[in-house]
Amino acid sequence: MSIVVVGSVAFDSLKTPFGEREKILGGSATYFSVAASFFTDVRVVAVVGDDFGAAEEAVFSERGIDLSDLERIANEKSFFWKGEYGFDLNVAKSLDTQLNVFANFQPKLSAAARATPFLFLGNIQPTLQKQVREQAGAKLVAADTMNYWIHGMPDELRAMLKVIDVLLINDSEARELAGEANLIRAARQILSMGPKRVVVKRGEYGAAMFGNGTYFATPAYPLEKVFDPTGAGDAFAGGFMGYLAAHDATDEAAMRQAIIYGSVMASFNVEEFGCERTRRLTYDEINARFRELKSYSHFEEVAINPRRSAK
Amino acid sequence: MSIVVVGSVAFDSLKTPFGEREKILGGSATYFSVAASFFTDVRVVAVVGDDFGAAEEAVFSERGIDLSDLERIANEKSFFWKGEYGFDLNVAKSLDTQLNVFANFQPKLSAAARATPFLFLGNIQPTLQKQVREQAGAKLVAADTMNYWIHGMPDELRAMLKVIDVLLINDSEARELAGEANLIRAARQILSMGPKRVVVKRGEYGAAMFGNGTYFATPAYPLEKVFDPTGAGDAFAGGFMGYLAAHDATDEAAMRQAIIYGSVMASFNVEEFGCERTRRLTYDEINARFRELKSYSHFEEVAINPRRSAK
Repeated sequence: MSIVVVGSVAFDSLKTPFGEREKILGGSATYFSVAASFFTDVRVVAVVGDDFGAAEEAVFSERGIDLSDLERIANEKSFFWKGEYGFDLNVAKSLDTQLNVFANFQPKLSAAARATPFLFLGNIQPTLQKQVREQAGAKLVAADTMNYWIHGMPDELRAMLKVIDVLLINDSEARELAGEANLIRAARQILSMGPKRVVVKRGEYGAAMFGNGTYFATPAYPLEKVFDPTGAGDAFAGGFMGYLAAHDATDEAAMRQAIIYGSVMASFNVEEFGCERTRRLTYDEINARFRELKSYSHFEEVAINPRRSAK
Repeated sequence: MSIVVVGSVAFDSLKTPFGEREKILGGSATYFSVAASFFTDVRVVAVVGDDFGAAEEAVFSERGIDLSDLERIANEKSFFWKGEYGFDLNVAKSLDTQLNVFANFQPKLSAAARATPFLFLGNIQPTLQKQVREQAGAKLVAADTMNYWIHGMPDELRAMLKVIDVLLINDSEARELAGEANLIRAARQILSMGPKRVVVKRGEYGAAMFGNGTYFATPAYPLEKVFDPTGAGDAFAGGFMGYLAAHDATDEAAMRQAIIYGSVMASFNVEEFGCERTRRLTYDEINARFRELKSYSHFEEVAINPRRSAK
């Protein structure tokens, strides 16, 4: 089964304690589609300006990603973001945001996109997410969001949550959305807003997935160096949705495996700038980290018995 | 096999967003021994004043904990701590600390304590920890420490680390001790200081165990309400050491199961004030949470295959 992703294809200027890059290819749809392309066919719905050239196009084409629904606007520029990270790589400082072509983005799904069974709504304005979802005939719809929309458009966000199946969200943003400091109760609260599953991304602490009556958690893949956290959440979503679509599965067992593949793809994504690392991944590398995550959390079941000397 | 624990037996006045208690029984040796007593015999080496009465003694005796090495000082008071937690239960605000009998505590191990094969050094002054360790003939020695010693007595702490097998430490304190923001590298650094294993307690994010060439991580037991975090780390250590001692095992498989029992005991400990919850635990309750933690992190191994349509 194939996936359609709606989100941004953008240019980022990034600075981390380990280096910097000017105007490299980024955006949620980019990170997502490169990761998902290892699992299944991906179609990108996004908008770019005429600064999107052959070099950028090659990143998608070499991964077999379908750009036929990519809107190209002449004489305008692509979305641009400039950000900086300190040693606390969890906090990005936005230095510049230029919406450019993205300001008037009105995603329209082609007939092929409408017929695609898996849909990922990258982190864009929640009303746009909802409009896209209503155009689509997808059997599984997942979405990402962020604090900007939680605070700025709470009603629109609530309306979007009613029409999706899976919400992927950061730990702190899950608590903000629910207005609840305890994550377990926050997740239950979010489930009551509509989604059947809430996937909480916890950075170096891993990920947790909440369903109605189900719970799954995994530690993160242990990394000695996080080079650039940009796009980690989208790469996670790409591995997660990619695995589900490739297996046309939405049951708990597959969802859990998908969380692990999501963790694996995110772990690679942060090892270099942009999608430089994920672009050149091999299947052996991906599967090796899956097996490692399995072994890192493995223990044999056992039970203790009442002691004779104590009650 | 049995355990000896050296630490504090104290009175705590606690306030959390959910309630408060005046002068309840606390201290690292108390939390540790109540948790460990479900697994094996425990002997407490600590000092108390004459405010330690029959009610306090009953908490230990009902759990079969051996107090014959508990030093009792007449006309003095036990260690007292008054603390308050806000909604961020990770941060305790110390309102009052009265060392009392603890100021001159010079733990001396009895012949029986010296012959005990498992030793836990609760969070006390590192030179005292080292002196106790040198008196003991234990085959496995674990210790806890805290930021107060990391900053205040770094050399003494380093000397102690050279003579123990397992260090149990909080996430942020592991980073402080190593002077390294990345936890994976921080743990490796700490391993180079002496311990064969470093167990990192990460609160609601679970726990991780690092050895030379080994790594294990588990999410925490998911709790909807954390009532009082005091003693969680010691209850964790009690479950961890209790399981190892009960099975006379120090191999990786047993260590991993011990981490899970530690997580289980900590999860109960925080559900009520002091050790009120752990005191009345049943084996069924303990084993049920072990099984739950197993099921919450379980997934089947799988591998993805190269796609025909992409490289």
